[in-house]
Formats: sequence, C-alpha cells, structure tokens
Amino acid sequence: MRAAIFYGPHRIEVGERPDPEIAAPTDARVRVVLGCVCGSDLWYYRGESPHALGPIGHEFIGVVEQVGSEVGTLAKGELVVAPFTYSDGTCPLCQAGWTSNCVNGGSFGNNGIDGGQGEAVRVPLAGTTLVKIPGSGHSDETMRSLLALSDVMCTGHHAAMSAGVKPGSVVAVVGDGAVGLCAVIAAKRLGAGRIIALSRNPARQALARTFGATDIVAERGDAATAAVMEMTDGLGVDAALECVGTNQSMATAFAIARPGSVVGAIGAPHGVEVPIETVIFRNVGLRGGVSPARIYIPELMEDILSGGINPGRVFDFETNLDGIAEAYTAMDERRAIKSLVRVAAL
Amino acid sequence: MRAAIFYGPHRIEVGERPDPEIAAPTDARVRVVLGCVCGSDLWYYRGESPHALGPIGHEFIGVVEQVGSEVGTLAKGELVVAPFTYSDGTCPLCQAGWTSNCVNGGSFGNNGIDGGQGEAVRVPLAGTTLVKIPGSGHSDETMRSLLALSDVMCTGHHAAMSAGVKPGSVVAVVGDGAVGLCAVIAAKRLGAGRIIALSRNPARQALARTFGATDIVAERGDAATAAVMEMTDGLGVDAALECVGTNQSMATAFAIARPGSVVGAIGAPHGVEVPIETVIFRNVGLRGGVSPARIYIPELMEDILSGGINPGRVFDFETNLDGIAEAYTAMDERRAIKSLVRVAAL
Repeated sequence: MRAAIFYGPHRIEVGERPDPEIAAPTDARVRVVLGCVCGSDLWYYRGESPHALGPIGHEFIGVVEQVGSEVGTLAKGELVVAPFTYSDGTCPLCQAGWTSNCVNGGSFGNNGIDGGQGEAVRVPLAGTTLVKIPGSGHSDETMRSLLALSDVMCTGHHAAMSAGVKPGSVVAVVGDGAVGLCAVIAAKRLGAGRIIALSRNPARQALARTFGATDIVAERGDAATAAVMEMTDGLGVDAALECVGTNQSMATAFAIARPGSVVGAIGAPHGVEVPIETVIFRNVGLRGGVSPARIYIPELMEDILSGGINPGRVFDFETNLDGIAEAYTAMDERRAIKSLVRVAAL
Repeated sequence: MRAAIFYGPHRIEVGERPDPEIAAPTDARVRVVLGCVCGSDLWYYRGESPHALGPIGHEFIGVVEQVGSEVGTLAKGELVVAPFTYSDGTCPLCQAGWTSNCVNGGSFGNNGIDGGQGEAVRVPLAGTTLVKIPGSGHSDETMRSLLALSDVMCTGHHAAMSAGVKPGSVVAVVGDGAVGLCAVIAAKRLGAGRIIALSRNPARQALARTFGATDIVAERGDAATAAVMEMTDGLGVDAALECVGTNQSMATAFAIARPGSVVGAIGAPHGVEVPIETVIFRNVGLRGGVSPARIYIPELMEDILSGGINPGRVFDFETNLDGIAEAYTAMDERRAIKSLVRVAAL
C-alpha cells in the first residue's frame, strides 16, 4: 500500500509499505478515508523531537475491511473514527477513564504501528479503540468534523476539562492552532461565559470568533498578560488553556490564571519550566496531557452529528497522499491551520 | 511586650517590641497563649530564604483583648485560633474560598505585622480572620490540637484536598514533618483506604501509624519509588502528597503518582523543577499551595473538639518565649518534629 513515510526532518514523501494484515485476534484492518497532519507532527518534521523513520500520522477515519476473531463489536464496511491512541478498555487506567495511558496501549505511527497518513492501518485492540459512526451519507463537512475527533477536538476538550471549565467560566485560550481553536469550541460547549482567544493572526481570530471567542488579545508575552488582567479586574481568568507547549505559552497561561484556578495544558512540552512559585504562592494548579480521546469521542460525536459543533472548520488546506509533503510545509509555514489528507473516496 | 526577633540566620532571640495597638477599626489585639515554630520558619532560620529582620512566627491561639469599632463578631475575652494568613472575607478570591490569596490579605510575622511568637498580636481584618473556639476549660491536649489548626493541620488537609483524596483512595505522603503527619490525618479523615507514609525516622513512623498510615516506606529516591510501585501493582497511588518542598520530594511524588492523578503539593518550593513530561505524558496533575486555612478551620475544629482527630501530637518539644532559640534548634537538628511555645497561661 501507499503511505506517508518520514525519511528525516523536512523529508516526508509517499512510499510503499506492506499491506497491513490481521496479526492478533483483537486487530482490525481499516481502509483510511481521511487523514490529516497534527501540530505535534511538526515537532519531528522540524527536527525538534525524535521520531523513528517510517510511517507517520495518528489521526484518521476510515472503513473497517477485516476484523480479528475477537473483535465482536465491529463489522466489515462500518465507518469508524480512530482516537490517536489505542487502548484495551479493561486495564485499571482505562477503567478509570485514562485510555491514553492504557498499560497495553500505544499510538498510531509509532513503534511499528501503521500511521494514519496511508491507505490502510492495522488497528490493535480494535474493539475497544475504534468508535463507530452511526448513519450514512454524511456530508463532507460532517466527515471533516468527524476526522477532528481523532485528536484535535478531543485534545482541545481535554484542555478545557483539565482546567475545570464550567458554565459561566471566564476562559483564556493560549495558542491559535487547531487545538487552541478546538479548545474555544470546547469551552463554549461547556458553558463558558467569556472566552478570550490569544491570537495575532486575523484568519485565526475570525475562526476563533466563529467558534465562540468573545474577546481577542493580539498581544504576546507581558503585553498579553497585561491585557487579560485588565479584562479581568486584575484577578485573571477562571481557566487558562495552554495549547502550544512552549515555555512562553506556559508562562503566559500561569500569569493570567486566577488564584485557585487550574491551567489546562495539552501542548507537547518543549523547554517548558513550570513556574512553581505561582503554583504554590498563587494556588494555580496544572492539569492536562495526552487526551483520553476514546472516552470523549462518543459525546462529542453526538454534538457533531446534531450540528452543535463543527470542528472540521480547522481544516483550511486539503490535498491527497501525493501532496503529503505540501500538507506539512503549509502548516510548517503557518499558511495552513491544519492540513486534511483525502486518502480515498468513501 | 516581649517577642521572638529574627536577627539573621541562626540568630533568633527574645526582644522587646512595641505593645500592639488597634490601628484600624477592623483590627483586634490578641494576647497569645500558645505559639509554635513552623517547618517553613527553618528556611530563613537556615539562611535559605530571605526574611526581614524583626518579628516572626505565624501560628498562634490566644485571647481577644480589644477589638476595633468594626469588629462586630468578636468580643474581649474570647479564645480564638488565627489562621496563618489574614483575609477580608469579601474580595472575589475570598468569596471563591481562596482566603490565603485575599487581595487585601497578608501573613503574620511579615511586612510589619506582628508574629505569633510573642506576647500579643495586632490582627488585621480580625472579624473575618480569627475563628472563635467554642466552650471553655479545654484540656491541654485539646489546646495543642487547636494550635495545630493555625497552619499545619490545615496545610496537610490542603495537600489532601488538592490531590482529591476520596473514600478508598490509595494515598502516599512524601515528607514526615509536622505537615506530612497532618496530611496522614487528613487523608484518613477523608476516607483513604490505604495511606503509605514515606519516613526513615522510627518516632515519626510510629506517629504516622497512630495517625492512620497503613504502610511505611523507609527508602528514599528511586528505591522509595520502586517500593511504592510494587505496593500498587506498578500503577502508582491515587494521590501523592508532597509535603517537603525540595526537588527530590517533588520528583518522588510525581514518580509514584498514577496516571490521571494529582500531586497535592504544599511545601514551600526550593529548587523544585516540575517534571513536565510526567504531567503531559502520564496525565499527572499538580495542585496545592498556601492553604486557605480560614476556610478549613471550622470543620477541622469540630473534629478536634469531638476527639475525632488529634493533630496536637505533632508537638514533641515544648518551651516558652525565653527558650525560643532552642525551639528552632531542636527542629533544625531534627530532634523535634514541631516545637510548641507556651507564651502565657490561659
């Protein structure tokens, strides 16, 4: 089959990979319909994080082609969303809702597991990982939003859940990437009373407003902090969502967080130093991490299918597998918020 | 009046201070009955944190001698506990339960405010700070436990609350100082099913067991982590309480925390680097800080007066104001868990 292959920093091309085969009775083989590029893919693309040479991508929706003998919950021909990590659903951590930390789990595009940027994927622990999409004949707009469930929408939601966003909360979102924008959707969905999006980019500001942002702060660093503090009577926000992963964004999130609040952080950390003095002397907590997407997908899918949320709008660049290199460069150069890869027709 | 004075590292003596006078209509003057030395006092005693020369100590119980014209809730002769920070009770942060971050607040023994290690204290914002102790003729044992409400019992409770200890939780307490021992009490009081105390000191191990610890881990560092992981099927504890403030203790707390759990930290941080990779990749959160003692005192006081908890047992050294230097050295040399200073008869 054809799949995107990582040959080293700035070198991603389509190549040949073995057709996936059922290797364990809990496997399924899924033919990919839509894949996409994640902001976190840029870290290794840019050479800033290690990644094994080979298959890449961890987000996809597709059609089940074959299931192992123990996968009783799925059948050939069903349309499914894959959360970006697979999980057994039965270990103590899965049972507690932390599927992204499953003791038998892993993520797509790592450790020999197929990536989502390819024609097909062997999905381990398929019965407890994949989520069926009900109905048929979904519009392309809906399909794009369902694809966003694979990672970014669930990750933005995890930032909001980690920070404890409640009805009426004053929320700030640091980061205007696809996850930050999805965090705006999540905050609105959870009933936030005010959502301050930190963004300098007019197109992203506009999308943030579409998603529910009530205020935009275009400043950065200390100026951004000053602006948010002025908007909040000098106290800070009830929930600061850190959706980047740099030291600057974490520092800003802590600086604008009200005493007693929790910073919800989901950015893969690069050079981040947590300001422990703020944690202790201002009672600002820190929660977040790799989203347990498998847990969140069902409720978020319901809202997508009812038209309540439309996270697929974060895809503002589209190509196919042959254009995979351009999918990365468009995001690397910030020409695109998020690149969709149309792998096959449904 | 006579009061303990900080003259520089390792130089604490009794000296003369002006008799406190009511300076604002919200003030009260309290005659101190019992004061004590806090583990956090050792930081400046040892020269590891700055502290202004002058009055010290932030924990005391005493008798109201005089109240300002706006202090309607207190009267001369009443026995009161002072939380270690004063607060107005009305600012948005107090209203949200974060009295230790009151926008008009402060702490005793700092910024010109009398310390608790002296004969009398001018208490700012007295009506919303001091908590009346009901009844009279309390035993010395009860009085000692009431003194512990001023800081250590509320701080240990804050560690447990921050980590979300629930009925049945498996809890580990890192640190066997007075706060760590009070965290054991707090965890038991909140219904923890198992409480693992990390302590090398036989006397403190014994007290931890008295307070409710079910297991003792005498190892340190990686060996302590290995021991706790083995006790928890390799998964870690539901709640790790960091009650020291060093980088080693924070590292241990994160290493033994189960994915999805929260480290409850209350130690004044000295050289602490939060392991952000653990936060993000294992979904281990961090909450805690300066305890909002004023909020916690009423419910904890009830349990002391009913005999349900007895945190005063952490006081294993006793002296009077003349012995204040020895009160510090006994703790500095770890001969004492916590030093009580008997200032006046009731």
